[in-house]
Amino acid sequence: MTATSFDPRTGTQISTAPATSESEVRDLLKRASASAERVAQATPAQRRDWLYSIADAMEFQADELVAIADRETGLGRARLDGEVLRTAAQIRFYGDVAAEGSYLSVTRDEGAAGTDRLVRVNRPLGPVAVFGASNFPFVFGVLGHDTSAALAAGCPVLVKAHTAHIALSHRLAELAQTALSEAGAPEGSFGMVVGRAAGVQLVKAPEVTAVAFTGSQSGGLALWRISNERDRVIPVYAEMGTVNPVVVTEAGATDMQQLAKDFVGSFTLGSGQYCTKPGLMLAPFGSDAAARVASALETLDPRPLMLTEGIAGSVKQGLVELRHAGARTVVELGDVNVGWSAPAAVLQADISSLSPGSRLLEECFGPVVLVCEYSSQDELLAALTNLQPSLAASLIAATEGADPQAPALLQRLSEQVGRVVVNGWPTGASCSWGQQHGGPWPSTSNPGVTSIGAAALNRFVRPVAFQDVPDEWLPPEAQQTNPYNVPRRVNGILTPAPN
Amino acid sequence: MTATSFDPRTGTQISTAPATSESEVRDLLKRASASAERVAQATPAQRRDWLYSIADAMEFQADELVAIADRETGLGRARLDGEVLRTAAQIRFYGDVAAEGSYLSVTRDEGAAGTDRLVRVNRPLGPVAVFGASNFPFVFGVLGHDTSAALAAGCPVLVKAHTAHIALSHRLAELAQTALSEAGAPEGSFGMVVGRAAGVQLVKAPEVTAVAFTGSQSGGLALWRISNERDRVIPVYAEMGTVNPVVVTEAGATDMQQLAKDFVGSFTLGSGQYCTKPGLMLAPFGSDAAARVASALETLDPRPLMLTEGIAGSVKQGLVELRHAGARTVVELGDVNVGWSAPAAVLQADISSLSPGSRLLEECFGPVVLVCEYSSQDELLAALTNLQPSLAASLIAATEGADPQAPALLQRLSEQVGRVVVNGWPTGASCSWGQQHGGPWPSTSNPGVTSIGAAALNRFVRPVAFQDVPDEWLPPEAQQTNPYNVPRRVNGILTPAPN
Repeated sequence: MTATSFDPRTGTQISTAPATSESEVRDLLKRASASAERVAQATPAQRRDWLYSIADAMEFQADELVAIADRETGLGRARLDGEVLRTAAQIRFYGDVAAEGSYLSVTRDEGAAGTDRLVRVNRPLGPVAVFGASNFPFVFGVLGHDTSAALAAGCPVLVKAHTAHIALSHRLAELAQTALSEAGAPEGSFGMVVGRAAGVQLVKAPEVTAVAFTGSQSGGLALWRISNERDRVIPVYAEMGTVNPVVVTEAGATDMQQLAKDFVGSFTLGSGQYCTKPGLMLAPFGSDAAARVASALETLDPRPLMLTEGIAGSVKQGLVELRHAGARTVVELGDVNVGWSAPAAVLQADISSLSPGSRLLEECFGPVVLVCEYSSQDELLAALTNLQPSLAASLIAATEGADPQAPALLQRLSEQVGRVVVNGWPTGASCSWGQQHGGPWPSTSNPGVTSIGAAALNRFVRPVAFQDVPDEWLPPEAQQTNPYNVPRRVNGILTPAPN
Repeated sequence: MTATSFDPRTGTQISTAPATSESEVRDLLKRASASAERVAQATPAQRRDWLYSIADAMEFQADELVAIADRETGLGRARLDGEVLRTAAQIRFYGDVAAEGSYLSVTRDEGAAGTDRLVRVNRPLGPVAVFGASNFPFVFGVLGHDTSAALAAGCPVLVKAHTAHIALSHRLAELAQTALSEAGAPEGSFGMVVGRAAGVQLVKAPEVTAVAFTGSQSGGLALWRISNERDRVIPVYAEMGTVNPVVVTEAGATDMQQLAKDFVGSFTLGSGQYCTKPGLMLAPFGSDAAARVASALETLDPRPLMLTEGIAGSVKQGLVELRHAGARTVVELGDVNVGWSAPAAVLQADISSLSPGSRLLEECFGPVVLVCEYSSQDELLAALTNLQPSLAASLIAATEGADPQAPALLQRLSEQVGRVVVNGWPTGASCSWGQQHGGPWPSTSNPGVTSIGAAALNRFVRPVAFQDVPDEWLPPEAQQTNPYNVPRRVNGILTPAPN
């Protein structure tokens, strides 16, 4: 078995790598497991240094990495130049979050009269299996959010390389191994496997304590089901994505032409291959939204290239299914029939056809959107209830003055998604303390977590309480003297880190 | 269908209640769902007042409640008097945790140049289904930890009453409904169902957003599987329990006689019906641990009464299975054959028989323990690796001076359990900021959460990020003016609540 990547622009083969054998995976698991205690015991500042070392190497080798990535993804130099720098920044961010130490949630109940002396602290889970996505070769690749957050939290990482960019994956893995070694991280703290069977072996392995996945619903659910059959079930954090809605109020629809242009810019970004791509616009009756979006798409006239032959095929198949489910084509810009090209399309449907179970409510990954018009706020709110929960939603409302529709819509959307954007687009999720990239099932497998932002570390730790344990036996981060200078709660009082 | 409770002292029937019908459950679900927005929008201080109102009523009616509980559980007035007061205190604690507001994790990235303005805040999930336990009619009953934590977090609660104390459950539900109504909580914020079918209906209902369960492994796994078959899978927080080990070091074994007496006190508490009951003692070779524990048990000479006929039968069946798996009986104090009586027993086995898959590693809920002796630290550490992860563990070590065995044992135990106690017993888990009552699979279904202590609220919220949302449209708790005076992180800096 081998993994082969292709040039999406031509469909010609780029790189081939052998799949990792069962015994090689066992060896990697053994090494990850053997390193787990030392990775966990490194200070948060040491782990920050490891991550900075990776980020430095990534920036130093950016040109070479981008060249490889561009050949395997067709995403273009400009986008990839930005993505690699963004990835280096996010890797450092996770290191900073580790060093800041809030993620440890150190809580000391020091034992008032008659109470237990309890010290609670988050401990790393152990080796984590990471499944990267095709659509962000850097940001969600071998050294993407999940890998950085797991290392920051003190867990060794084993990544399953994405076949779509197998040459880049190998280059990133080499880079990480060298950078980690130079920064003093234990051997075994990072490894990579190739091939589907190797990935499944990771999810089944007793050594693995959690799985992080970004990709399709079918892929995420498959891993989740495999974990649920384990002797010891482990958390599977699958970020799968659904349809992200854009809701336009009457007051928000005053300049529908500009809105249509911006919407097209958002849903064609990266050929629509964003988990935050807006896939459904709900606009007021009479706004002529579908025609204007179609017209803006014709003006842009994109020639979308997809990351893989499979995705290109899914776009074409998705269009067939959406039409079968009652959508009408407003515009479809032809497939150029070169490499992994696919059409971009604007479809329209009656809002009444957005009923539970309809294909219209399911994602079509790629530059395809559905536009529906609503006649009343009640009709709009009812339609929103039928949508699958999603990662993100946009509300386009009045930019000045009151908008009577907005508060109820914001409330409803916030019940169904992980992030609501007002007068902006869901594509692009910055990596910061306040980010939330997640959402209720089936947009993710776990509504309480995020795969972007500071809280991403929380997926890879679990709290342990130490009762009446002598202070010198506690993990250093939880000791009374606070050697790592982390924020903590002492006898119920939250105390930021001293300066 | 009806639910019937019995007097464990005699086996005679106490109370019978009709099972809640399918249409009655649908009605309760509709009411819970209709109340969800108002429960969520109540201020944390208002929810604290609701919980205080319940606690006040519980204390006021303590005598009556204890009398009912004693007839249905046989746990005795002294224990139940304490338990009802402890429950009132824990209910108030969850109210205080809500009002303190850290659980909201308010995070404001106010948008430095070129960055997104993101405000992240935890929002209540919606209606929660709670399955109480038999063994703590108050602490984990209809108004136990899960109910209080969910209400504190802003979620309506529907409880499935435990048949073992059906009369008490009805009394507690009436009490809660009156107290909530008097305190101004919305109608529908609390409800109760009776019967297994009604419980399953809750777990399958689209209106329910999370399930909290405390009880047996078979019961917890059954609910977890039902949820996994839903169209929209929801979190099932099942606290199931396994075997909690007690590890005695050489230096900790100096007064084995006293230790044996204390161990017996711990594992016979509540007839051994604690999820934190220590079920396995690992003591040094030559400490004569098994004989001394047996002797202490004979001195105490308990006559255990179990909560249900089913549990009494399981204890007897468990003893058969443990012997079949290679355990030898050191002492077994006879079943008195009255009501739901069962034997108390000390068994012994070779440490080499603690191999993965052995029945010896599985829980026997009740006053039954297994004692094994180890010859070396290596043998001990290897045996620990084979144990099922558990809620708690005790390490009995030197009380003064160094103990060369202790650090490695503490490290190993902390990797397998939710709470480690040094020189104390796992039974009894105080409800405080630093508590952690959880553990890796299969002791619970989710290693990252706790069902006791301040962090118990976290199970019933999920983060939502608001991007570029006008401040007045945000949930009040996240607004710039901080109207509820909660701790928060602003532009990366953690800030406790102003005084």
